[in-house]
Amino acid sequence: MSHEPPGGGKRVPHIVIVGGGFGGLWTTRALASADVRITLIDRRNHHLFQPLLYQVATAGLSSPDIAAPLRHILRSQRNVEVRLGEVVGLDAAAREVELADGDRIGYDTLLLASGATHAYFGHDDWAPDAPGLKTLDDALHIRRRLLLAFERAEAAQDEAERAAWLSFAVVGGGPTGVELAGTLAEIARKTLRREFRRIDPAQAKVRLIEAGPRVLSSFPEELSEKARKQLQKLGVEVVTGTPVNAIDEHGYTLGDTVVPARTVVWAAGVAASKLGALLDAPRDRAGRVQVLPDLSVPGHPEIFIAGDLASVQQDGKPVPGVAPAAKQMGAHVARAILDRLKGRPTTPFRYKDYGNLATIGRMAAVVDVHGFKLSGLLAWWFWLAAHVFFLIGFRNRVIVLINWAWAYWSYQRHARIILGDRDD
Amino acid sequence: MSHEPPGGGKRVPHIVIVGGGFGGLWTTRALASADVRITLIDRRNHHLFQPLLYQVATAGLSSPDIAAPLRHILRSQRNVEVRLGEVVGLDAAAREVELADGDRIGYDTLLLASGATHAYFGHDDWAPDAPGLKTLDDALHIRRRLLLAFERAEAAQDEAERAAWLSFAVVGGGPTGVELAGTLAEIARKTLRREFRRIDPAQAKVRLIEAGPRVLSSFPEELSEKARKQLQKLGVEVVTGTPVNAIDEHGYTLGDTVVPARTVVWAAGVAASKLGALLDAPRDRAGRVQVLPDLSVPGHPEIFIAGDLASVQQDGKPVPGVAPAAKQMGAHVARAILDRLKGRPTTPFRYKDYGNLATIGRMAAVVDVHGFKLSGLLAWWFWLAAHVFFLIGFRNRVIVLINWAWAYWSYQRHARIILGDRDD
Repeated sequence: MSHEPPGGGKRVPHIVIVGGGFGGLWTTRALASADVRITLIDRRNHHLFQPLLYQVATAGLSSPDIAAPLRHILRSQRNVEVRLGEVVGLDAAAREVELADGDRIGYDTLLLASGATHAYFGHDDWAPDAPGLKTLDDALHIRRRLLLAFERAEAAQDEAERAAWLSFAVVGGGPTGVELAGTLAEIARKTLRREFRRIDPAQAKVRLIEAGPRVLSSFPEELSEKARKQLQKLGVEVVTGTPVNAIDEHGYTLGDTVVPARTVVWAAGVAASKLGALLDAPRDRAGRVQVLPDLSVPGHPEIFIAGDLASVQQDGKPVPGVAPAAKQMGAHVARAILDRLKGRPTTPFRYKDYGNLATIGRMAAVVDVHGFKLSGLLAWWFWLAAHVFFLIGFRNRVIVLINWAWAYWSYQRHARIILGDRDD
Repeated sequence: MSHEPPGGGKRVPHIVIVGGGFGGLWTTRALASADVRITLIDRRNHHLFQPLLYQVATAGLSSPDIAAPLRHILRSQRNVEVRLGEVVGLDAAAREVELADGDRIGYDTLLLASGATHAYFGHDDWAPDAPGLKTLDDALHIRRRLLLAFERAEAAQDEAERAAWLSFAVVGGGPTGVELAGTLAEIARKTLRREFRRIDPAQAKVRLIEAGPRVLSSFPEELSEKARKQLQKLGVEVVTGTPVNAIDEHGYTLGDTVVPARTVVWAAGVAASKLGALLDAPRDRAGRVQVLPDLSVPGHPEIFIAGDLASVQQDGKPVPGVAPAAKQMGAHVARAILDRLKGRPTTPFRYKDYGNLATIGRMAAVVDVHGFKLSGLLAWWFWLAAHVFFLIGFRNRVIVLINWAWAYWSYQRHARIILGDRDD
């Protein structure tokens, strides 16, 4: 592929942005009226509203409800070209990225915003039996596993096998783990009620396992406690302070106890995208690139990092890997690029923390906005409003609201369709 | 698995129904108040509204919009047990079906309603390069192929490669082929407009190929001609009277001409489900079981066939493989089962033809109701109303209507999300 724009024309700075998540997309949009040429590269054709991914995994939303094609979002921004492709190499000296199909794309400025993936802390062999949740494909895989577990229990030949299929564990007590466990308990107790003849889905054991002392450790202790109580009310058994020491197809080991369970979901670890390793720059333990205050890479003022791939310290604490932080970094990188183009010095990035939300299940959530704390039903409405408001695209918001209203009224989850090979 | 009902109780006749499509589901529902025990076995967990499957393949609808879990549909019908499983064997003497997981399930009466699949007329090697459309997985696979073709064209290195990626063919001019070709042309000309920078999607060539003399051959000639004109207006090149003689990854051979094309969709052939071959009964060329007038199998009054697996002649013509015929057969089998239980003779099945509808694309369709013929916009509204009305489940109807209204107003197709491995 030629590095030049399709129409030729005068030479304008070429910004290559890798990753169409919150970081990359917010940079792209903030440069809409800049006199630059942008190439946005992503391995997938869509921007994903990751905060609602657990709803796809638990069959409450369809994939298109929380995803929109990048081309469509950016169709009117004429200085952007979207490229579906996977970056596999970086030649910082030549200022080129290399794609999996062999194409090389040159840049004047590069933004790496390729995010994070789940990590198993050196236990990659757990991956097949404890899938994690980062992409839509992950969500559909987890959905298939959850729904099939109840089917297998219904067809089980003996009690032990049945009990193992009805034993669920979510490893990791952060927001994703809490959301998954709470929703899974709701599915077992409400959604599937009366649908089976040989099992009672409400007898399913849903366990949330956190190695640390409490769930939602990024929240004040008081809200962690509220979350624990709300989870228990939904039917989740919350286990804290005990690590999972092994996972295989038969179950998991909690401390020294072997627990039979055919369905384990991994929500415990995050590792930065591998692209950070292509840079000759310091990284933290999770693989995040330790950037300068303006989010550029030490020694490479023409390369920026935004979102979960960036390691940023502020007031002695790391900036959290959440969507608002990624958006703010994205917008900051756009400003820094414009500053450079105009010959101005760049400014340091400051993360503005608007608060912390986590949902737990039907009518249950916790909210912490600068010490203003909410939990329960009111927090849930707050959470719902915030998430639907931030969904990209008018249609998605409306449909998601309708789906939620329907699910709320009927306890039903409309996306309970098992796709793909049932035995993979 | 025990053959006995979970709760024990008195011995009631056990009806085993294989297939939760229109035939099997309609039988099941018609037996709701009968004093029987029903086991409904399906390889998939959902009933599929197949007439709208092409909309999932062309990214207009999501999978859950046209599918509903069988368990959910039947949750209140307490004489039914739903079993997810694949039937692989039949012992008619012992009156047992065998599942892939080794379970054997005994029956007093058996209904085989496992439908049809696509067939390549002895050219199974064409399958990887010309996927067919029968299941949701098929639809998502075709969706991925269609959307990726435009992405590959955008990234193509030379003109020939680009042209091959923008060359589409749909083989088979029946209702499914017509729907797919018309919608594909709309996507290229309207939906993707302005989204690419190096290609003009409107330059895509969409060809509909029918070996016979006209498209929609089950309609009156006048409507076939109308359909051809409407297709051409949408931008589809309609080729009739010429067979496809070869298909591979590079393209297809039309008569003697090799046409480069990276995306070919197969809508030409139908073969009955393999389960028909488990019976010692006469079958037609497509593998359909030639049943007696009451839809039972010759020599096996306790085995019935309904839907696409049944070969039924009426007034010298075959009953068509369409949803209304399958529903009518399903209802008839339920009546025949009740007749037998009450010691009455069974009655012959009569197909009541309410008419024939086919959609072509945005605002274009053809309708033939007992010689009353419609085409164009009015026919399209007729088609839309009929299809949304017959969709199973209240929620689906509302959501599908909203999606359609949105698509109509905006030309957008909300499900343009590429899932799964992009290189498979």
